[in-house]
Amino acid sequence: MVNTLFLPELREMLADANTTELAVFCTALHPVRTAEFMEGLQDGELWRVLQYAEPNLRAEIFSYFEWDRKVELLAEQPEAEIAELITCLAVDDAVDLIQELPLDRAESLLALVPAADRRDIRRLQTYAEGTAGSIMTTEAARLPEYITVRQALEKLGAESENLETVYYLYIVDETNHLRGIVSARSLLSAIARQETKLADLMESDIVCVLADEDQAEVARKVARYNLLAIPVVDDQRHMLGIITHDDVIDVINEEMSDDFQRIAAVEPLSDSYMRTDLITLSWKRGMWLTLLFFFALLTAFVLDLYEVELETFPWLIAFIPLIISSGGNSGSQSSTLVITALATKDVELSDWWIVLKREMVMGLLLGGFLATIGYLTAIFIAPSMYAATVIPITILSVVIAGTSIGSVLPIVFKRLGLDPAMMSNPFVAGIIDILGILIYIQVAILILR
Amino acid sequence: MVNTLFLPELREMLADANTTELAVFCTALHPVRTAEFMEGLQDGELWRVLQYAEPNLRAEIFSYFEWDRKVELLAEQPEAEIAELITCLAVDDAVDLIQELPLDRAESLLALVPAADRRDIRRLQTYAEGTAGSIMTTEAARLPEYITVRQALEKLGAESENLETVYYLYIVDETNHLRGIVSARSLLSAIARQETKLADLMESDIVCVLADEDQAEVARKVARYNLLAIPVVDDQRHMLGIITHDDVIDVINEEMSDDFQRIAAVEPLSDSYMRTDLITLSWKRGMWLTLLFFFALLTAFVLDLYEVELETFPWLIAFIPLIISSGGNSGSQSSTLVITALATKDVELSDWWIVLKREMVMGLLLGGFLATIGYLTAIFIAPSMYAATVIPITILSVVIAGTSIGSVLPIVFKRLGLDPAMMSNPFVAGIIDILGILIYIQVAILILR
Repeated sequence: MVNTLFLPELREMLADANTTELAVFCTALHPVRTAEFMEGLQDGELWRVLQYAEPNLRAEIFSYFEWDRKVELLAEQPEAEIAELITCLAVDDAVDLIQELPLDRAESLLALVPAADRRDIRRLQTYAEGTAGSIMTTEAARLPEYITVRQALEKLGAESENLETVYYLYIVDETNHLRGIVSARSLLSAIARQETKLADLMESDIVCVLADEDQAEVARKVARYNLLAIPVVDDQRHMLGIITHDDVIDVINEEMSDDFQRIAAVEPLSDSYMRTDLITLSWKRGMWLTLLFFFALLTAFVLDLYEVELETFPWLIAFIPLIISSGGNSGSQSSTLVITALATKDVELSDWWIVLKREMVMGLLLGGFLATIGYLTAIFIAPSMYAATVIPITILSVVIAGTSIGSVLPIVFKRLGLDPAMMSNPFVAGIIDILGILIYIQVAILILR
Repeated sequence: MVNTLFLPELREMLADANTTELAVFCTALHPVRTAEFMEGLQDGELWRVLQYAEPNLRAEIFSYFEWDRKVELLAEQPEAEIAELITCLAVDDAVDLIQELPLDRAESLLALVPAADRRDIRRLQTYAEGTAGSIMTTEAARLPEYITVRQALEKLGAESENLETVYYLYIVDETNHLRGIVSARSLLSAIARQETKLADLMESDIVCVLADEDQAEVARKVARYNLLAIPVVDDQRHMLGIITHDDVIDVINEEMSDDFQRIAAVEPLSDSYMRTDLITLSWKRGMWLTLLFFFALLTAFVLDLYEVELETFPWLIAFIPLIISSGGNSGSQSSTLVITALATKDVELSDWWIVLKREMVMGLLLGGFLATIGYLTAIFIAPSMYAATVIPITILSVVIAGTSIGSVLPIVFKRLGLDPAMMSNPFVAGIIDILGILIYIQVAILILR
């Protein structure tokens, strides 16, 4: 999304050290667009332009750069300026970036960051990746319950620049236990009664997450409860931080990519596709590909067992791929539909019988249709109209087997506590391949002998 | 998520018409939990309990019921009460629900809704499904630029219950052109200077969407710009409504399900899996399954052409499924990774050559490994160690073909303006199946003759 439109002007302003115009450039547009117009510059030029924005705006523009660019800047620009930038970034973002730096650089930068921010950064660094703790920020508005709406508004006004969200006030007691939440909405609705205590506005039935809960669970709760932010607590209900809606959208997108990869039998990449090195990529693909390969190897042994039958009726060979792919494709349709429906709670474990019945009917309809086309083709290849009936009978049986196994296996895996997205497709494919061949030969023997 | 814990108590309170306790029940918990505790009741009981909550809370609790339950209640409960409920629902949700009702019921309900709300509902009904207009709501705070922070706070306070979000104020001129946005954050930061005009706080570089833009584009913009809500305008920049973060999360989840279904070669279901009838489902699956079937049929004709070769070396038959599935699985890994990377802009169209090179190296690594296992197995089935080399050479070639075609085809489809998620997997599978067999037979002829 690099935009080169303003590059010549920006370089000219830099050459002239035109403070006024550079300051205007930094403030005139939405920070995302400012970032896009700057990305065509060299690191050094870009960093100099950035210094014309005041620190909080600078941090916001910076936050919209590409990830690699951010890491590069942090690694190479003057330490004191970087330390100031880190102080203004959201703590969770700062932690993610610092993690990418060489250890000595990270330490010397952190030494320049004010003690309070440094402590927050150190604390967040201790949470494992993928947990609520690792994506939370500590910059939430914490207030005691005895203050008034007027006082709360003043406090929020004074601190708003340093808060990650001003849309919820978190009510904590003197030992930082989370007691309740006041939304900006209810604060505003009490604007005509400014002496009201927060205690009277506060919701005390709070939706929150534990710091070590899975980030996917965070996303589910935020979506279910329509929240803008969710508080993170420890098991004694101490308020640790909050996770805001924008981080939740990132989590949803990340989990989505993971699930796509799982369905294609790739172990989820922790980084983006382009940034993953080939060794990691071949490991994450190779392990599942090898599993699938072993399933397929079994088909070779099964087919080898039936060498005599296939030599007696050689026209059967031509249809082997067709039979296998009909079962495989209808099975992967069923398993993907059921995996998605399980993820969105559209299907529960207890629905297995309803799902199986639906999919068997589905297999009958789809298989019946494909069997008809298959028969019309088989007539040309098989030695007789009668012999050709092997093909439609097999296709119908294999498709029904595909939809049945494809629908039940994800539910079984989920019941066993395994990840249906990861396990189902390889197993459905493997079982259907072998079953398909067995059904095919048995039907052929029955009809042709 | 039905919770039966309180059902006996609720029924007792209803029998006693215990107003106090029922009112407490409705307000004590988060509305989501209140909804969960009520869902075990019969429609009539549930509706009576709901009447003990004041109208806005009633609408909020109602909004958390399961979709089918909501439609049922709307269809069957007293018209006057339903009309009041509709007035309190977010307009976009009201539109979606009314759409599910029989036409005469919908009309008689709408007749009871106040004219202003009815007009909003009618207007939203005109937008096509999947567009920004269809998911927006009209309940946004619209203010002129000449009013002060104090006046804005008072106005927000008075209206906060009827607004979908209080977190952005939309500044419009007298003809409803969108001129700027003031966030609640900047309003709060000006709380010490209450005579400031909104014009001085307003951002005028606004991110907005057109009413007929795709909802996926809405989700991308909201995620990219970290917004809580995005304004919807027409092409003369008249303010039509807003789309809030919770609807955006719904869109992301919906688009995600669609893409999963596309990757599994299912035409996206417009409804959930369990609510889609079997005819629709078999049509949406059947069309792609049939396309895949025709590709697989071609393999039958190709194999039929090589009947002589296969009869001469019958042991080759055993490996047909293995060859095809090696190519198919590695190809679908590549295409899914590239489809996901294209969707997240990790890969751009211009990167095709980098991607192709990566995937060819990938194919070499993965194919080399699988070829080794394949050779070790082939020794047992093939007549000689020399003859067995057909298998590893074929596997290596087919896997490289799979990763190359799997990576390039989604980029080609995207370049042609087609949906890579929908088109790629069937075509990759189809091409690889046929190519796999051609490679296999050619390698066999080369080595065994």
